[in-house]
Amino acid sequence: MRGKTAIPELMLRNRICELLRLFYEKGWVAGTGGGICAADGKGRVLMAPTGIHKERITPRELFVVDSRNGGVIRSPSNRSLRLTECNGIFSLLINRRGAGSVLHSHALSAVIAADLADGEDRITFHDLEMLKGLRGVSNLDRHMVPVILNKPREPELVGQIEKAMDDPAFSRSFCILVKDHGAYIWGGDIWETKRHAEVYHFLFEAAVVRASWSRSIHRIGR
Amino acid sequence: MRGKTAIPELMLRNRICELLRLFYEKGWVAGTGGGICAADGKGRVLMAPTGIHKERITPRELFVVDSRNGGVIRSPSNRSLRLTECNGIFSLLINRRGAGSVLHSHALSAVIAADLADGEDRITFHDLEMLKGLRGVSNLDRHMVPVILNKPREPELVGQIEKAMDDPAFSRSFCILVKDHGAYIWGGDIWETKRHAEVYHFLFEAAVVRASWSRSIHRIGR
Amino acid sequence: MRGKTAIPELMLRNRICELLRLFYEKGWVAGTGGGICAADGKGRVLMAPTGIHKERITPRELFVVDSRNGGVIRSPSNRSLRLTECNGIFSLLINRRGAGSVLHSHALSAVIAADLADGEDRITFHDLEMLKGLRGVSNLDRHMVPVILNKPREPELVGQIEKAMDDPAFSRSFCILVKDHGAYIWGGDIWETKRHAEVYHFLFEAAVVRASWSRSIHRIGR
Amino acid sequence: MRGKTAIPELMLRNRICELLRLFYEKGWVAGTGGGICAADGKGRVLMAPTGIHKERITPRELFVVDSRNGGVIRSPSNRSLRLTECNGIFSLLINRRGAGSVLHSHALSAVIAADLADGEDRITFHDLEMLKGLRGVSNLDRHMVPVILNKPREPELVGQIEKAMDDPAFSRSFCILVKDHGAYIWGGDIWETKRHAEVYHFLFEAAVVRASWSRSIHRIGR
Repeated sequence: MRGKTAIPELMLRNRICELLRLFYEKGWVAGTGGGICAADGKGRVLMAPTGIHKERITPRELFVVDSRNGGVIRSPSNRSLRLTECNGIFSLLINRRGAGSVLHSHALSAVIAADLADGEDRITFHDLEMLKGLRGVSNLDRHMVPVILNKPREPELVGQIEKAMDDPAFSRSFCILVKDHGAYIWGGDIWETKRHAEVYHFLFEAAVVRASWSRSIHRIGR
Repeated sequence: MRGKTAIPELMLRNRICELLRLFYEKGWVAGTGGGICAADGKGRVLMAPTGIHKERITPRELFVVDSRNGGVIRSPSNRSLRLTECNGIFSLLINRRGAGSVLHSHALSAVIAADLADGEDRITFHDLEMLKGLRGVSNLDRHMVPVILNKPREPELVGQIEKAMDDPAFSRSFCILVKDHGAYIWGGDIWETKRHAEVYHFLFEAAVVRASWSRSIHRIGR
Repeated sequence: MRGKTAIPELMLRNRICELLRLFYEKGWVAGTGGGICAADGKGRVLMAPTGIHKERITPRELFVVDSRNGGVIRSPSNRSLRLTECNGIFSLLINRRGAGSVLHSHALSAVIAADLADGEDRITFHDLEMLKGLRGVSNLDRHMVPVILNKPREPELVGQIEKAMDDPAFSRSFCILVKDHGAYIWGGDIWETKRHAEVYHFLFEAAVVRASWSRSIHRIGR
Repeated sequence: MRGKTAIPELMLRNRICELLRLFYEKGWVAGTGGGICAADGKGRVLMAPTGIHKERITPRELFVVDSRNGGVIRSPSNRSLRLTECNGIFSLLINRRGAGSVLHSHALSAVIAADLADGEDRITFHDLEMLKGLRGVSNLDRHMVPVILNKPREPELVGQIEKAMDDPAFSRSFCILVKDHGAYIWGGDIWETKRHAEVYHFLFEAAVVRASWSRSIHRIGR
């Protein structure tokens, strides 16, 4: 599953753009928000530019970044494009978590799921078959995902992300929720990232609906 | 309606893949979850592989299974593909319920509808015209669907499914809800299965919305 | 706006099928439910068959019905197709309301909006700009739509529909809600019917959301 | 970002029609409601006609209006088309706010967000990363959007809109909410308007969901 085999660069560029169109339809990268990267298995990472409509990005408009240090190897010929501020976070997840691809989602369901943490630094998903869609997770697990606080700029999130990665409670998580913001979701390659992204967004929605029911029951039970 | 006439295999392969794309758009088979099978009327059943993105399955990637015993007659040439763990359940529904096709849905609405059973082993749908979309059911019926408990692996569900099939209360049901998981929905052929699937997902959503209203009314009525 | 000019039959057949695909995507004709008809301005009405997947109906599969008496002028060559049971209601709305086209919607929002009537025989829509999308209605109007009770078969609805049409309170309504079932929505031609259908489904959804808020406020206000 | 460079007229006509199809899919211009305009950077504004299905407008069906005074420079050859009543408001936003393009949305989320103002003349959005998708706005800002009252005809809204534009509290807003009606959303060019529109609709939905939670918490907290 880990995307350690080399992928032809043009194919990877096309896949990234195709998935951005799909994720736009799902409401995960609206308003030019969100982002994506994918490694080519040869030490280079393709990253979508920031500030432009994600569903309209073309294969030529991606940046090529060195996976070890986040340095730009090649910029798109369109000089008005800027590298995503998620670069540092993407590189961290690639180097410390073995991510082969990372989605940065701006989905409303991610924001509301993070609200459910209610001041805690985590949210726990449980009693859902969909958990099995996460590598190494069973439907009996209580799956904990870290929730960190939002900051004015993405690079300021790095400290909290490093701390979450150091916490053994989150060793099986492929997701970091950022309150009021969205989520970072990753996998061993771009297809596993797609699968994990669909699973986590399902978990977000399920948690929100169930929390809503649970509050109703609470009120009835008084 | 019963798919007892033989269907050319290539046509059936194409239909299965087309419907998987449709069901993916509806959110029923996200995150590689869910599955589908359809019988060819000549004793063979085509089944989608497990663990891959369901909307991207191609006609060549289906397994051919013996409908009598669930044995694999032909595997796809891509040896990395694995047969769905739903094989046993699919075969059971084909042999004991005359199903010509079975959808395994991972829809959130199925999960929440099963939550409504609230510890009971069933949920009752009523007062909905859409009930007429189920073969042999009228809009005056109180239509009972079994709700079984989830297990770590699909084959462990077989005992509960057999028990539900033996219960005359569920003799008219084309659906088994699995708590925290989703639903198995079937029909005499792939088109009836599509119709039943659309009807049941409508019933799930209607039941959830109405239960939510009913709790509100409860609170007002106190 | 009234579709009294003659429309080439092939064009009308194509339009009907195109709109059925659109309405299917909106969830108004799922599970083979719902239906549509459109008059050609020359005394003939094209009607979709019953019991088949509405989004897959082809232009050749429509029935041609005499608008004066509902008699079948021409059946599709596929003899397994059956005329919709809505035929009588469609003809009534064409002859008594000047409808040039009628949509029968099975939308969940129509069912829940009818629930809001809460035992009354009507629901009132108000304080919405979208009301202006209905012919002759202003955004200051309190727009009343009749809600009738469901019956086992569509022809049994005719009596209640005639009564609603006789009620001057509903003289401006292009919609009849059927509890637990859906809605009949019409316009002078197929495009006005599309516009009215989009407006009414918006009104249904808005009424449901607002009723939900209003109940919350109620509870807070106690 | 400001669309002050000239855009070839045919390209702009195509973009407008493409975005209307997209906005229709999002439910922002259903039932022939809503509208759009975009300036060509040479003193002329293209405007969609009123009263027709917005997603079906073709590039030839747009009006050309003088951006200084709102006068019609060129009408479409189809004489049944009428200029939008939003003309005056569009011109106001172009001339006083430097808008290069304005979307008039009829989204339900805009109507419900305006309901949340609860009698006040504004709604405040805060604690959302998506705020950064608005030009000059940070995710730490409390972003205030004016809410004005609906009137029978669009031109009657002008006075309230002028007053809102004079209010320094709204100097950073690219949106005016009209209660029971929808929203006007603009940007420096058509792409910024698309971005702002996606951001504001996200803000509307987030505010509605959070207000709903907050009322629940209220009830629990009593």
